[in-house]
Amino acid sequence: MTDPIAHRADGAFTGTADRVINDGSTPPSLLARSPRVLVGHGGGGRLTQQLIEEMFLPAFGDAHLAELHDGAVLSLGGTRVAISTDSFVVTPLFFPGGDIGELAVNGTVNDLAMCGAIPQYLTLGLILEEGLPMETLWRVVQSIDRAARRAGVSVVTGDTKVVEHGREPGLYINTAGIGVVPDGIDISPRRARPGDVVLLNGAIAIHGTAVMSVREGLDFETSLESDTAPLAGLVGALLAKLGLSVHTLRDPTRGGVATALNEIASSAGVGIEVKESAVPVWPDVAGACEILGLEPLYIANEGKVLVIVDGDVAEAALDLLREDPLGAEAVAIGRVVEDHPGRVVLHSTIGGSRVLDLLSGEQLPRIC
Amino acid sequence: MTDPIAHRADGAFTGTADRVINDGSTPPSLLARSPRVLVGHGGGGRLTQQLIEEMFLPAFGDAHLAELHDGAVLSLGGTRVAISTDSFVVTPLFFPGGDIGELAVNGTVNDLAMCGAIPQYLTLGLILEEGLPMETLWRVVQSIDRAARRAGVSVVTGDTKVVEHGREPGLYINTAGIGVVPDGIDISPRRARPGDVVLLNGAIAIHGTAVMSVREGLDFETSLESDTAPLAGLVGALLAKLGLSVHTLRDPTRGGVATALNEIASSAGVGIEVKESAVPVWPDVAGACEILGLEPLYIANEGKVLVIVDGDVAEAALDLLREDPLGAEAVAIGRVVEDHPGRVVLHSTIGGSRVLDLLSGEQLPRIC
Repeated sequence: MTDPIAHRADGAFTGTADRVINDGSTPPSLLARSPRVLVGHGGGGRLTQQLIEEMFLPAFGDAHLAELHDGAVLSLGGTRVAISTDSFVVTPLFFPGGDIGELAVNGTVNDLAMCGAIPQYLTLGLILEEGLPMETLWRVVQSIDRAARRAGVSVVTGDTKVVEHGREPGLYINTAGIGVVPDGIDISPRRARPGDVVLLNGAIAIHGTAVMSVREGLDFETSLESDTAPLAGLVGALLAKLGLSVHTLRDPTRGGVATALNEIASSAGVGIEVKESAVPVWPDVAGACEILGLEPLYIANEGKVLVIVDGDVAEAALDLLREDPLGAEAVAIGRVVEDHPGRVVLHSTIGGSRVLDLLSGEQLPRIC
Repeated sequence: MTDPIAHRADGAFTGTADRVINDGSTPPSLLARSPRVLVGHGGGGRLTQQLIEEMFLPAFGDAHLAELHDGAVLSLGGTRVAISTDSFVVTPLFFPGGDIGELAVNGTVNDLAMCGAIPQYLTLGLILEEGLPMETLWRVVQSIDRAARRAGVSVVTGDTKVVEHGREPGLYINTAGIGVVPDGIDISPRRARPGDVVLLNGAIAIHGTAVMSVREGLDFETSLESDTAPLAGLVGALLAKLGLSVHTLRDPTRGGVATALNEIASSAGVGIEVKESAVPVWPDVAGACEILGLEPLYIANEGKVLVIVDGDVAEAALDLLREDPLGAEAVAIGRVVEDHPGRVVLHSTIGGSRVLDLLSGEQLPRIC
């Protein structure tokens, strides 16, 4: 374990094996560079990475963890468990294909699934703004209940706070989750290695485009709906069959596929090559992105997962993914290589290639 | 198990043995009575109780839990664990004796301790308002780190979101925690029974009064400091010695000692009698409460715990509590009786007695 920092650029962070003791007297250089919190600090690009590396990990680095995950995998009374947390601040609260409540369940369920865990329990923290219509809260609570049933998890404890409202009363949700990691499973971004194949369970950029189309008041000819869905079943079936041949799982939410692959390449010290023509983008999503000036590879997904498997089982994995409706359109989009470690290279449809880098700021604020 | 609803009036809720299936087509009567969310819905009185009973528990009632706790106690891979969550929205962020970061650690650590668990891991969800001074975030993060070390827990995973700011940029924190419940421990409000003695580890109403004094810009002759502290060590030592003779633990945060005792009386179907002269209130706290028009028994505490033990071990329990600096001023304040089940009766210093009821609204908004 030589990498002192384990982080995720999208604002999630986990601990590290080499705790940096900070006595509080030497504030990070981040303070000088950015005296105030910017929207981009929560958005999944370089600013978020700086916040995590220079502020959170020096403080919270933890000897229990040496890996870069969507959650923490650790031992609890002899059982290997995954723990994850996520806050949800999406606006509007309701959007085509979903709402903040459904996202809050699926987001944390999926983070646990990305650790190879079987999600079991969720906690629910609600921060409500005074004046929020009770009917709105009721709809969100019903949606959380439905999503939890669908994902097979129980909401076991919760907390409610009420704060003064902003321009329009809204709400924030935090969910934390826990699940057991079965024996014979070892999922980690560090396990991606040359020869592995990168799979994706379907078309990208749908969630972000659906939310932005409502928020911007745009009318597209086709009505896009968020792809939010719980992925634990899809992933569980894959792991049950292929076990240790599945190396890395990642749901490309904030920051999209490009950011997720960059994090994996950086963690594992490998290069990743992506074939642009292999990445499915629906025509109406592509059209909406063009109108909105957004790049699909950086747009948030909700029901999508990047699966990195040993090259020998890539075909078998694709077949397994396609057996689930959530993976019906699964494809191989690229491979892990020895060249250009830490970098993701996109081979474009017109024959050229370019580095897919992290974004500096944020394309889409409050997308989840 | 006959009670279909397990709740806490302060906004926390846990599941129930008798899940009420709600198909979403029949919104609760709460919608008609209160069309919008009020500050009191998060404050720990009757409004919060309504929200929990009529909205959250019908949706989230869970077969795993039949008890009323600060967190959920459940089985995970064969290990008995406690899980808890709490969001923190206190203003101001920094107050005499503490800050939002320290509260966020101690609050969740203490909720786990109140379940008889040894707290181990915390998750951290930060919701930052755009424009928040980075220096403020740095101070809060340092405080979280210090508090976690003191409490012996690790922050193992986190998430950061940034939202538009209100009048003055602030931040909210959610922590969820998990810990293992040792064998030979059975803590539950339902275990309070006639003959038990109610103990308290020190003087009340300090945290709420300290925060309000700063918020209201009042200058008191004595500078009050919050009593925020992690209670897991104090409680752990008690449980290690007295095991099953410790029946109920509760940290009287939002809603204060009066609300906490009401919840216990209601859960256990017992009466509780409190001797007013036995409840320690510091003179400067009493003075501040008089100026602010507040009732100490309803004011939020942070480093305090109500311990209900078998009458036979009450003296031994007091001695054990007093061995810890956090319990140096421990006292017996009352007893559990068969009379007036579900009610708390206060025997006043001047000889009379009155029912200590739940408050309808909220004395102190955004106190934690």
